[in-house]
Amino acid sequence: MAASKALFSLSFLLCSLPAIISQSFIRIPSDRSVVDNDIYCESWRLSVETNNSGKWSLVPSSCASYVEKYMNGDKFLSDSEVAFDNMLAYAATVEVGSDGKDAWIFDVDETLISNLPYYKLYGEATLLPVSLRFYKKLQQLGFTIILLTGRTESQRTVTVQNLLKTGYSHWSRLILRNTTEKNDTALVFKSRRRAELAKEGYKLHGCSGDQWSDLVGYPMAKRIFKVPNPLYYLS
Amino acid sequence: MAASKALFSLSFLLCSLPAIISQSFIRIPSDRSVVDNDIYCESWRLSVETNNSGKWSLVPSSCASYVEKYMNGDKFLSDSEVAFDNMLAYAATVEVGSDGKDAWIFDVDETLISNLPYYKLYGEATLLPVSLRFYKKLQQLGFTIILLTGRTESQRTVTVQNLLKTGYSHWSRLILRNTTEKNDTALVFKSRRRAELAKEGYKLHGCSGDQWSDLVGYPMAKRIFKVPNPLYYLS
Repeated sequence: MAASKALFSLSFLLCSLPAIISQSFIRIPSDRSVVDNDIYCESWRLSVETNNSGKWSLVPSSCASYVEKYMNGDKFLSDSEVAFDNMLAYAATVEVGSDGKDAWIFDVDETLISNLPYYKLYGEATLLPVSLRFYKKLQQLGFTIILLTGRTESQRTVTVQNLLKTGYSHWSRLILRNTTEKNDTALVFKSRRRAELAKEGYKLHGCSGDQWSDLVGYPMAKRIFKVPNPLYYLS
Repeated sequence: MAASKALFSLSFLLCSLPAIISQSFIRIPSDRSVVDNDIYCESWRLSVETNNSGKWSLVPSSCASYVEKYMNGDKFLSDSEVAFDNMLAYAATVEVGSDGKDAWIFDVDETLISNLPYYKLYGEATLLPVSLRFYKKLQQLGFTIILLTGRTESQRTVTVQNLLKTGYSHWSRLILRNTTEKNDTALVFKSRRRAELAKEGYKLHGCSGDQWSDLVGYPMAKRIFKVPNPLYYLS
């Protein structure tokens, strides 16, 4: 069964990040010529962000403190800012018509809002002002905003509350998993829903998500944008 | 007209890297909260490697010395090693049959061999032992190796010489642009050739390239792997 992000976030509430990452494992190739651990962990993070790594389950234990430093320091914020700047640079080139069919798709958790207890421990998510600023600029540009999340319909009310509380509003549609979709991977579920949107005549200009399963699969948006997340992977 | 890598490499021979990168420009968003230049340049490099940046022309001038340090230090080597480790981890899971149809596609320049004068100035490309090791392991696993490069048919002999000289051999096919394809983008050319391979019955398990135009476009290999290259972008 595919774990939904919401379920993940819920279970995550029961444990702290250091506990999660210290349980993890790593395959260190024996013929590795670079031994500096931070350099290796940066390469590991790159492999995750490019999806070279494919499916992965846990942050390598040797990278636990690196990831903690990355999330708490300036790097995560800088990476997020550049990612959202990339989105805006592209969005500004799109000719948006008046028929409401020029769409941008957002994932919710760890893309627009952050539910990780990590942030509760260390302060407000640094991602929020950056993503909220872009969201509002997209609205000014006339895009139709569609939220496509792996959360289930049973979480609709709380999801709307989460979004409004953090400053998001006036989306055109909030798509959640219905009961027949709860066993689908995020990739299958999200691709199916994008196909439905395309069929309705939406032009899928951009898609933003912290998971590759938010972004790839047919049909894909014309441009996809990976929001940094070195903490977990969802298929 | 689409610039081929070979043409690029040729023109690159006429100038040194510092000259290339010092001509470049950068848009620094006015509302950026992170000001450390190396942190920004790391984020810029991530945006390139994830393809969030889309098409880009020149290394930002403020990142010239960062990129030089990156290429000359341990980071490029480490990133390359992890990328090829990712490939091997996946390749080892593929059930390779005896019909010769289980294929892996490689780009050539800056994926298998490096022609940049940069390397001539600073010593042998660090990428080579890493990529050559993976290439040989793929052969041991029984994969059919297909080389798909933006170089033209007129460069076949020199390309074969380049490859053999650096240790590559026994590929199944070396696909170059024919004369009717010279104005195609790499994306269009490479997608068309992958479609032909799929039609011939090849299973496109993996595809490795330093450019996103080596990797995306229909049909895509089942798994795609981005080899690091913060020096240039080809459509």
